[in-house]
Amino acid sequence: MDIAIVSRLGKLEFMAQALSEALPEARFFHWPEPEALSADIALCWAPEPGVLARMPNLRLIHSIGAGVDSILADPHLPPVPICRIRDEGLARAMADYVLWSVLYFHRQFDRVIANAGQHIWHRYEQRAREKMRVGIMGLGSIGSEVASVLSQHGYPVSGWARSRKDMAGVDVYAGDAELPNFLESANVLVCLLPLTAETEGILNHRHLSMLPEDASLILCSRGEHLVVEDLLELVKSGHMRGAILDVFTSEPLPACSPLWSTPGILVTPHMSGLAKPRDIASQIAENIARLERGETPHSVIDPSVGY
Amino acid sequence: MDIAIVSRLGKLEFMAQALSEALPEARFFHWPEPEALSADIALCWAPEPGVLARMPNLRLIHSIGAGVDSILADPHLPPVPICRIRDEGLARAMADYVLWSVLYFHRQFDRVIANAGQHIWHRYEQRAREKMRVGIMGLGSIGSEVASVLSQHGYPVSGWARSRKDMAGVDVYAGDAELPNFLESANVLVCLLPLTAETEGILNHRHLSMLPEDASLILCSRGEHLVVEDLLELVKSGHMRGAILDVFTSEPLPACSPLWSTPGILVTPHMSGLAKPRDIASQIAENIARLERGETPHSVIDPSVGY
Repeated sequence: MDIAIVSRLGKLEFMAQALSEALPEARFFHWPEPEALSADIALCWAPEPGVLARMPNLRLIHSIGAGVDSILADPHLPPVPICRIRDEGLARAMADYVLWSVLYFHRQFDRVIANAGQHIWHRYEQRAREKMRVGIMGLGSIGSEVASVLSQHGYPVSGWARSRKDMAGVDVYAGDAELPNFLESANVLVCLLPLTAETEGILNHRHLSMLPEDASLILCSRGEHLVVEDLLELVKSGHMRGAILDVFTSEPLPACSPLWSTPGILVTPHMSGLAKPRDIASQIAENIARLERGETPHSVIDPSVGY
Repeated sequence: MDIAIVSRLGKLEFMAQALSEALPEARFFHWPEPEALSADIALCWAPEPGVLARMPNLRLIHSIGAGVDSILADPHLPPVPICRIRDEGLARAMADYVLWSVLYFHRQFDRVIANAGQHIWHRYEQRAREKMRVGIMGLGSIGSEVASVLSQHGYPVSGWARSRKDMAGVDVYAGDAELPNFLESANVLVCLLPLTAETEGILNHRHLSMLPEDASLILCSRGEHLVVEDLLELVKSGHMRGAILDVFTSEPLPACSPLWSTPGILVTPHMSGLAKPRDIASQIAENIARLERGETPHSVIDPSVGY
């Protein structure tokens, strides 16, 4: 079996290495090697648009991450199943990142760390946990895990998704009509949405200004969800307390970005949910085995909704 | 009933206010008001040595915090019961602080935050949770809560105490003989010990250098547990990764302390376990009621062991 790695991020050697342990008989080609065009399977991250349509033997497109927006951005996709990673380790890693970030604002480590830089000792009043409602946008496998970890940790949790879901311990809001009520109650807003035409730019001035005073944003979905200028304005004016941002439209975030130096904003290097290559490889290998046996692979996405 | 507030921290008005709601018939006097000397009950934090011995009607000494070392420092204590606060909210608040601090080192937020200050984007490899063993010194009510929260969160946890205890999910070490083995396995060392003659200065060069390479310290007990110069030397030499320090021998920590500016060390303003005045007041009021009914108050400490 021939596997093509098609990514604008480079050759992703670690992925071929991890997969060749799980699939010893497979041959790997890296686009733009010409042999890549005759592969059966394409492993993708931000593939160059049009390349996948030129692969006549293609039977499966597999994202090497949880998101598929960088694949769906290709307007000429061939009609084969597209799978994504659904990684428990990844969801757990993101839940840790979000829990740390919620505690950062709840226990006022943002102010304490800023003060420490100036050798300032100032003790803030302890905020009640019940007054730190965490609002989670996106209730897929990652959003559900994050909601569950925060709720188990005693925080009041709301969730918002396109369609209604039932989740123990989480107040669920659905659709555009309920978005304002969801936002008005969120002291910490966590964005874990998939990137689609509907969600691009959703974190804009209109929506962010619906948050209560002193609210914070935690962004670990995609940079395209956020209108950076709107966030900067709301943080500088004091309506919003701050933000922890892990994803950006351009990564690495350029050193000249004002996000690095705006008080209240912490930039982290897309670290919230690094999955382990071995875990990713074993999911991809299992999906390839299912395909060979004529079974439907796991985690096939629906291109019409975008996830 | 007359209650004296005896504290070198000042009049602690918030405490008298919270208590007078719970005990409407009580009269409050603040040492050095002369009426304080005829009180029945003394509420103390760092009382001036010798004052309590001059109170002939004294029936109970009550700390307004979880620690009693600032009371036991008085060599002339009268022979009445000494009680301390045993606050679940406080233990929970400290568990939050420790969990945040463990995640800070585990997910390398220490380096990420330092990098962000210089607009540096650098992604570190994700460390496995199983390789972040947390060693907790002190397994009283606070240490047990912290151990339980960290263990539930999936971290391997060891505990060390003067005498052996049985705790689910925690590898317990006891006494001086087992301290080296305990320290050698702790990637993050958390000190929650009571301050006694035996534990003063326990975090010294000899003990800290038994920690494995790249280990960190979280100190939220008392500043006197730590030999600051020894920590500075081990962090600067690179043997230790860093520390989060919440308590100091002199508070507020003077702006000239090298702790503020040593890379790898984060100073926080004794914030890990601020109990709410109302919770403290209700425990003190209940203990006073028990005394009035001839019952033993809760949380009487043993002056011979120091907690």
